[in-house]
Amino acid sequence: MEHKPSASGKVYLVGAGPGDPELITLKGLRCLRMADVVVYDRLVNLSLLDEAPSGAERVFVGKKTGCHSVKQEEIHVLLIHYARQGRLVVRLKGGDPFVFGRGGEEALALAQAGIPFEVVPGVSSAIAVPAYAGIPVTHRNYASSVTIVTGHGCAYGRHPADVNWEALAKVGSWTSF
Amino acid sequence: MEHKPSASGKVYLVGAGPGDPELITLKGLRCLRMADVVVYDRLVNLSLLDEAPSGAERVFVGKKTGCHSVKQEEIHVLLIHYARQGRLVVRLKGGDPFVFGRGGEEALALAQAGIPFEVVPGVSSAIAVPAYAGIPVTHRNYASSVTIVTGHGCAYGRHPADVNWEALAKVGSWTSF
Repeated sequence: MEHKPSASGKVYLVGAGPGDPELITLKGLRCLRMADVVVYDRLVNLSLLDEAPSGAERVFVGKKTGCHSVKQEEIHVLLIHYARQGRLVVRLKGGDPFVFGRGGEEALALAQAGIPFEVVPGVSSAIAVPAYAGIPVTHRNYASSVTIVTGHGCAYGRHPADVNWEALAKVGSWTSF
Repeated sequence: MEHKPSASGKVYLVGAGPGDPELITLKGLRCLRMADVVVYDRLVNLSLLDEAPSGAERVFVGKKTGCHSVKQEEIHVLLIHYARQGRLVVRLKGGDPFVFGRGGEEALALAQAGIPFEVVPGVSSAIAVPAYAGIPVTHRNYASSVTIVTGHGCAYGRHPADVNWEALAKVGSWTSF
């Protein structure tokens, strides 16, 4: 995963983990420490920003339900813009970039623009938050599967249309033992 | 999460991540570096063992389908045994301890034995392996949920009985856009 400085920059889509700054991966931290630009979310622990070089540009693109500060398409434009300047860009996202993190959309936009990128997975909040509360999401005797479902549809606040809740309720059953 | 040396030891159930040793968390690595004993699995990248102090005991308890080297109950006994010696034990597991990692069973055994323990979540292979292959497990336009299912029942090689595959197939649908 070594970054070789070149005319074309590169974007790392990095999962920052679920909140505890110590739950970032070594690889995520290494990317952060060599970043020229950090583009970060509302859900990221801000102490992680101190790990980027002092001269690195820090760009907040946080959004919350019903109140976008920066639209998703604008984030794509920013990432492509900074990478085309030949800079090493870290897109720092809460949790894991590919679990409801829009990492897929950003990866697609970068691929379409011909920008090199790499995904650095993170600890997903969907698994770690229950863990911190003492709840294993699977257990041989109780749960053979776990389903992670978004609470939002494509339009903010909208119920996700493409989840079959009735089927979801039937996926796992509790075995007696 | 500071460990204070005491008469009673402590067990950290640590997720090592999906294979790439750089995908362990900072917290996981910190635990490893202060371990007196490391009890590790077959799926753990062995280079991580070098991070434990040179004097630390390294105990392999790997198992594979149909060929246990150490039974799960024996692992519980080992963890409790080492902790009762007042040692800091790291139980190093591939992926995340609570996603088909038996972390739940180990946590329960430790709780019942009155041994202090802590869970250090890891990057789950179920999410990271598709990510490394370029596949986001969720995407606003394509997938509002993801289900992670074990391939094994309680008895090794046995089909998990408590998964309703028909319902599972109906949980997500593909939206057109």
